[in-house]
Amino acid sequence: MNYIQSANNTHIKQLNKLWTKKERDKTGLYLLEGFHLVEEALRHKEYIEELLLSEEAVPPASWNVDDLNVTMISADVAKKLSDTENGQGVFALCRKQETADLPDGTTFLLLDAVQDPGNIGTMIRTADAAGLDAVLLGHGSGDLYNPKVLRSAQGSHFHLPVMSMDLMDAIVELNSRNVPVYGTALEGAVDYRETNPGPFALIVGNEGSGVRQELLGITTKNVYIPIYGQSESLNVAVAAGILLYHFRENN
Amino acid sequence: MNYIQSANNTHIKQLNKLWTKKERDKTGLYLLEGFHLVEEALRHKEYIEELLLSEEAVPPASWNVDDLNVTMISADVAKKLSDTENGQGVFALCRKQETADLPDGTTFLLLDAVQDPGNIGTMIRTADAAGLDAVLLGHGSGDLYNPKVLRSAQGSHFHLPVMSMDLMDAIVELNSRNVPVYGTALEGAVDYRETNPGPFALIVGNEGSGVRQELLGITTKNVYIPIYGQSESLNVAVAAGILLYHFRENN
Repeated sequence: MNYIQSANNTHIKQLNKLWTKKERDKTGLYLLEGFHLVEEALRHKEYIEELLLSEEAVPPASWNVDDLNVTMISADVAKKLSDTENGQGVFALCRKQETADLPDGTTFLLLDAVQDPGNIGTMIRTADAAGLDAVLLGHGSGDLYNPKVLRSAQGSHFHLPVMSMDLMDAIVELNSRNVPVYGTALEGAVDYRETNPGPFALIVGNEGSGVRQELLGITTKNVYIPIYGQSESLNVAVAAGILLYHFRENN
Repeated sequence: MNYIQSANNTHIKQLNKLWTKKERDKTGLYLLEGFHLVEEALRHKEYIEELLLSEEAVPPASWNVDDLNVTMISADVAKKLSDTENGQGVFALCRKQETADLPDGTTFLLLDAVQDPGNIGTMIRTADAAGLDAVLLGHGSGDLYNPKVLRSAQGSHFHLPVMSMDLMDAIVELNSRNVPVYGTALEGAVDYRETNPGPFALIVGNEGSGVRQELLGITTKNVYIPIYGQSESLNVAVAAGILLYHFRENN
């Protein structure tokens, strides 16, 4: 087992760069941090390149790390490597899961330029809970491997395919498969409870501007959630939750 | 109109303390920041004590501030006073809205020790959208006037009563009013779609531990949202959204 006690170690410096999208894109690697996320990764060992454990972290007895490349790091190095203020000293260096084609299936969530990492991660978690077949991130949406996205997703990115894809292409492909595509919009839309049960692809959009008109124009139907009070809108992740459970439970 | 150009000004120093709960509790005052929140406040002028505008901020022409106490501040003071990295230089000093008794009504959301300010604010926004009568914050839940709660609530705290209250007391009172109280739990609970339409009070709980057993023991019924995939649970604000819209739409 390796032991690294200097934050100036070349390998540690290299790992630290993975908190940037640029470095993740260049290397195809990313870091997971914390007991919960690393435990999820251990169920998908094929993606793990290396496990890094602080000498002060006590991994659960249930963790089987025998066949993994494990590096022990000093508490100081763990602190330097951590993306959070109170890190747990447990990291997994993972390989990104690249998927090029739209996966098979009949239930999809499409994110059009959603910005907030917490919203993106929460929606991936909700899509997992609702048993969806895949989540598609359109251009302009945040990066799946951003640490805040991964924290909010709580490991769900291991449970269903999450892929970057041009949403125009995706809609054309979904149409050819006879999967109805529902946009979300305030105008020219119907109450979501008027939609039919069956397969679906739901598109939610940017926190400020919603789904692009370009996409709304080629959907099967656009839906809205009624507002009964005085708020202008719902948080996008909450809206996605209401809609996904509505569509899912009609399946 | 006053003009303050030194961040060392006593009044500015005093206002800066309002980002702490201690000072807000002591004074009964809080700060709102940003165009959207201040615009919401302007529709409820009775709560505004003072408006503070950076000399670099251009308030919309629609803002009527004639009858308000307005202070102009330098860009430097605005930056020092801001709670965010890219503040908009627009602040409202407001008086808290204190409510002692459970408001009239038949639809309530109760938060038991919810910690994350973003979750609390998002649920207040959702409760507003779903047309609820009030949100009750139990002991151990974050503070309504925390700036992150207010940002996530997007002004909804002006639209419906949000009050701190002992949830045991609240449940007793709701029982006496014949409002069914639904806890959320993974065990000893029924699928939420098995609940009857009508008045409701929904309790959601702490992000890690859920609703306290003490409360779950005195509810009318406890409900769960089915998980179809591999995630362990839903984000609490997403769960609240799904449930509130379910109960609301059966009303």
